[in-house]
Amino acid sequence: MKRLSLKQALALGAFVFLPLQANAASSSVDALAAKHASANYREFVELLAIPNDAVVPADIQKNAAWLERAFQKRGFQTRQLANNGKPMLYAELPDADPARKTVLFYAHLDGQSVTPQQWQQKSPWDAVLKRKNAKGEWEAIPLETLYGDQVDPEWRLFARSSSDDKGPIMMLLTAIDALKETGRKTSVNVKVILDSEEEKGSPSLGEVIRQNADLLKSDALLVLDGPMHQTNKPTLVFGNRGVALATVTVFGAKQGLHSGHFGNYSANPAMRLAQLLASMKDENGRVTIPGYYDSVKIDAAAEKIMAAVPDDETALRKRLGIAQAEKVGRNYQEALQYPSLNIRGMAAGDVGAKARTIIPESAVAELDLRTVPETPPEQLIGLLKKHIEAQGYHLVQGTPTDEERAQYDKLASVASEEVSASSSAARTDMQSAVGEWLYRSYKATYGEEPVRIRMMGGTVPTGSAVEALKVPFVIVPLVNADNNQHSYDENLRVGNFVSGVTGLIGVLQQPF
Amino acid sequence: MKRLSLKQALALGAFVFLPLQANAASSSVDALAAKHASANYREFVELLAIPNDAVVPADIQKNAAWLERAFQKRGFQTRQLANNGKPMLYAELPDADPARKTVLFYAHLDGQSVTPQQWQQKSPWDAVLKRKNAKGEWEAIPLETLYGDQVDPEWRLFARSSSDDKGPIMMLLTAIDALKETGRKTSVNVKVILDSEEEKGSPSLGEVIRQNADLLKSDALLVLDGPMHQTNKPTLVFGNRGVALATVTVFGAKQGLHSGHFGNYSANPAMRLAQLLASMKDENGRVTIPGYYDSVKIDAAAEKIMAAVPDDETALRKRLGIAQAEKVGRNYQEALQYPSLNIRGMAAGDVGAKARTIIPESAVAELDLRTVPETPPEQLIGLLKKHIEAQGYHLVQGTPTDEERAQYDKLASVASEEVSASSSAARTDMQSAVGEWLYRSYKATYGEEPVRIRMMGGTVPTGSAVEALKVPFVIVPLVNADNNQHSYDENLRVGNFVSGVTGLIGVLQQPF
Repeated sequence: MKRLSLKQALALGAFVFLPLQANAASSSVDALAAKHASANYREFVELLAIPNDAVVPADIQKNAAWLERAFQKRGFQTRQLANNGKPMLYAELPDADPARKTVLFYAHLDGQSVTPQQWQQKSPWDAVLKRKNAKGEWEAIPLETLYGDQVDPEWRLFARSSSDDKGPIMMLLTAIDALKETGRKTSVNVKVILDSEEEKGSPSLGEVIRQNADLLKSDALLVLDGPMHQTNKPTLVFGNRGVALATVTVFGAKQGLHSGHFGNYSANPAMRLAQLLASMKDENGRVTIPGYYDSVKIDAAAEKIMAAVPDDETALRKRLGIAQAEKVGRNYQEALQYPSLNIRGMAAGDVGAKARTIIPESAVAELDLRTVPETPPEQLIGLLKKHIEAQGYHLVQGTPTDEERAQYDKLASVASEEVSASSSAARTDMQSAVGEWLYRSYKATYGEEPVRIRMMGGTVPTGSAVEALKVPFVIVPLVNADNNQHSYDENLRVGNFVSGVTGLIGVLQQPF
Repeated sequence: MKRLSLKQALALGAFVFLPLQANAASSSVDALAAKHASANYREFVELLAIPNDAVVPADIQKNAAWLERAFQKRGFQTRQLANNGKPMLYAELPDADPARKTVLFYAHLDGQSVTPQQWQQKSPWDAVLKRKNAKGEWEAIPLETLYGDQVDPEWRLFARSSSDDKGPIMMLLTAIDALKETGRKTSVNVKVILDSEEEKGSPSLGEVIRQNADLLKSDALLVLDGPMHQTNKPTLVFGNRGVALATVTVFGAKQGLHSGHFGNYSANPAMRLAQLLASMKDENGRVTIPGYYDSVKIDAAAEKIMAAVPDDETALRKRLGIAQAEKVGRNYQEALQYPSLNIRGMAAGDVGAKARTIIPESAVAELDLRTVPETPPEQLIGLLKKHIEAQGYHLVQGTPTDEERAQYDKLASVASEEVSASSSAARTDMQSAVGEWLYRSYKATYGEEPVRIRMMGGTVPTGSAVEALKVPFVIVPLVNADNNQHSYDENLRVGNFVSGVTGLIGVLQQPF
């Protein structure tokens, strides 16, 4: 199954209806951040200019080399981590103190593939600075303006990876630069790992981590990737659901039958499949398979935090074009904390012009079950199978034999694959040490409550890093929700660069 | 919708497990029939030699001309009926007596298309005589053997239209020849109409009939077409179900949504469609839509006749590969007397390799509803729509507007087309005058109870002829069920030719 990158997942969950908020940071940190951001924009543009599609290993090597020098410039010790010609980069500040916690920052240096002719600029890697004109359209302004004194936070930098994920890497380097000016040390030991194939689903990330386990040893993982909440308020994301796939097939007669001659005699597997699926959920969208939700426990503190997330659900429903939401949770955030059972595809016979008057010989439903840590894939699939059997079905492997057909009236199969780590659910308690650390930092830095997402709905490869490292993690998105990552108009809101640096300065100073 | 020809429909309903029965007719009629059959085989082979695919009007004209001469030879008055270069043929015996009933015999002179290279003989129109060898394979024997004295009823004549439908035409001509030898007049006035495009769905049959209404005026229609019951016992079929199509679409959000981010929030239209369909039938396959079966009344006499049909349902279920049948009727024949609701196709999103983790934006089910005369299409479609609304759905035309989306939680559409006459149900009461006439005739001729089929499950174009003529009709199949009509090994069992002539002699002598 094609896994979503973190940004795809977060972006799909984001929606924009309010003008992006400029965050009110404590003015001195903000000024410090702004100053160093300004100083680093040229360097940022230089980084953006290096193509970084992981299908071209030579480009990945160039990016790794450039970033290695950039980190070394800030005093990091670095090492390229072998990965089949697409090296990942490791960096650590050498002033490690065993009395302090060690935080591993994750980001990725590769980018989504491009289709250059779709871009409205000379090249996806030649960053273009744009502002919105009176008609609400984005128009280019000279790039040099970004290097001057009068920088509007609403301007956008259009380039592949401007927000996904080179922006956050640059923000981290800039935060380090800012701290250096203050002369203060970081509050934590700092390690960095830059993935080189995140857009390809990080197929070897777990392996690379295991091969360099000692090097990457840490107390917490911060994932600098993904879009913030649509309100652009400071955002912390504490986990993601996993996903398991299952294919349910219901069998009818040995072959398609003429519906005139056998309708009312030979049961229709499409109808049986419909009845079977219908037995799995109620009118409100709640799964009725016994035990499905049992393991999920959400405490009062989590409920409060979720209720505080400023989702504009009225606007969301209008955008989706639905009158009501399902009633799995009391609000959108709560709904995402539960495992799901979704029919992603369903087929029997043919529809449209090819439809024939037959009783199809079988009917199939493709399901995706979003998992949460308390309900791993094997558990949900097991409940699904048990439920199908409870509806009177005899489960077969492949297709039924003649003997099975003669013996059992209701025949079905459930096929599922083992779920890899990158498709697993992962979650860190919001009240954990790392959670509290980031919360206090953001609150102090920005002067307001950050938006805390208990678990995002979609699945991202974090699981493989988390499983390999075995540390608590938090996803720390720093870029604007409407960044159109992966598209031909990917952009980074300039103001987010500054506020990202601000936030990171605060984090790197916050006692853990 | 592609309509089945009568033979396709009957053939699909037939199944062979017993050796075909040779019918024990009264020996004198049988001998008479055999004698004249023998005398006419050469003529039959000559008729078969004329290609008759209606896509070649010149061939149809040749067949019409040949048959016109053949009927004239027997003293019929004939007229070719104009039909866009593919003339139909009308013939009547000139000794019409207003005191007698007039019976119109229907058959068709056109045939199914051929793919010559698939045939295991020189040409599909050069009839080949075959017998079964010791290994159970069909092997050719000299055609001349058919013209001799030692003719085995188990031999088969392989040629396109040998059974569908030139065999029955020849059987009728032969019965007339036999009667001439006896010197007796027919018991009814005899009219004949030979359709020229039955295999194309008889698109203009109704129109041709209406244009020649006075000519075709009659008291009953006998359709000499289609395969007999699989036991090869004398068979009478009193009607067929019609068919109406409907497309039910359930709508979700405006577009496909990421199932991780919106699963548990935005209702899945595939699940809703499943729940909607599931509400239409119970576990036994009985339609639960209120009123669906109400108009259907089957009297005790009909039940008795249906129970007497020698279907081997155990063998049928084994062949189909099902353990049980649905419980719409108490037996196979009864099941076919009720309207049906069949899902002929169903689709949402994609399945297999193309499946993506989305909540599809819509889900569709293609339904075919077999109608019976008491439950015409408009009635069933109306009940379907009413039921869907009763499940809380707001029905839209096409796709929902934004306003409808904002106002209604459950949105669906039902699309259906008007049903033409050739897709309508048609049935003649088995106890009608024509029904009793044929029953008495067959019983007297064959010395056993004929198999009477109240209504066959599939839909055939009889409806358009019946609607245009407005007369009671009976389908009188005369050829073996395993004739593989439409295939590359179409054949007529020689014994059926003789027994068909026998039956027709009896019918033409039976007082009506």
